[in-house]
Amino acid sequence: MADDLSAQEELHAIRNSIDNIDAAMIYMLAERFHCTKRIGALKARHNLPPADPAREEYQVQRLRKLAGTAHLDPEFAEKYLAFIIREVIRHHETFQRK
Amino acid sequence: MADDLSAQEELHAIRNSIDNIDAAMIYMLAERFHCTKRIGALKARHNLPPADPAREEYQVQRLRKLAGTAHLDPEFAEKYLAFIIREVIRHHETFQRK
Repeated sequence: MADDLSAQEELHAIRNSIDNIDAAMIYMLAERFHCTKRIGALKARHNLPPADPAREEYQVQRLRKLAGTAHLDPEFAEKYLAFIIREVIRHHETFQRK
Repeated sequence: MADDLSAQEELHAIRNSIDNIDAAMIYMLAERFHCTKRIGALKARHNLPPADPAREEYQVQRLRKLAGTAHLDPEFAEKYLAFIIREVIRHHETFQRK
């Protein structure tokens, strides 16, 4: 019983950490999309091509390497980037339709 | 020409910010998965159920609200959580197979 109570307390403490991390992630994602919106506007203003395969390849390789030092699966780091880029493209498409 | 150069400089500066944000995200994701691994082990040790619908519902509502204050699409905040939880489930399955 006492053991179960301390398990519940530990669960609660770890969940608090997860909630703090998620809050930080939400604010950083907002800042990241703020950056990509600025890039979208800059590219439109200067007739720069929207896609940049060399930049994307650089990002993939860099994040895979960072994941290694953070003890995170490099495949997941790549999935994270793909997930974000899908959303960036969705933003650009919505922006263009306006 | 000078205008195009300054556009390239601005693009470079914004991309540097994105790279910094992504590095922070990778380390925070690693820490988040570190937390969920501890929770997985704790639940296994104390025979607690793996899924917790009330906790997930709390997380969804909390992140949607935070997204609002961060000027981020609440739908995207929910997609972010679903993306992370899919990976957590994958980790737990891999862990159980070991």
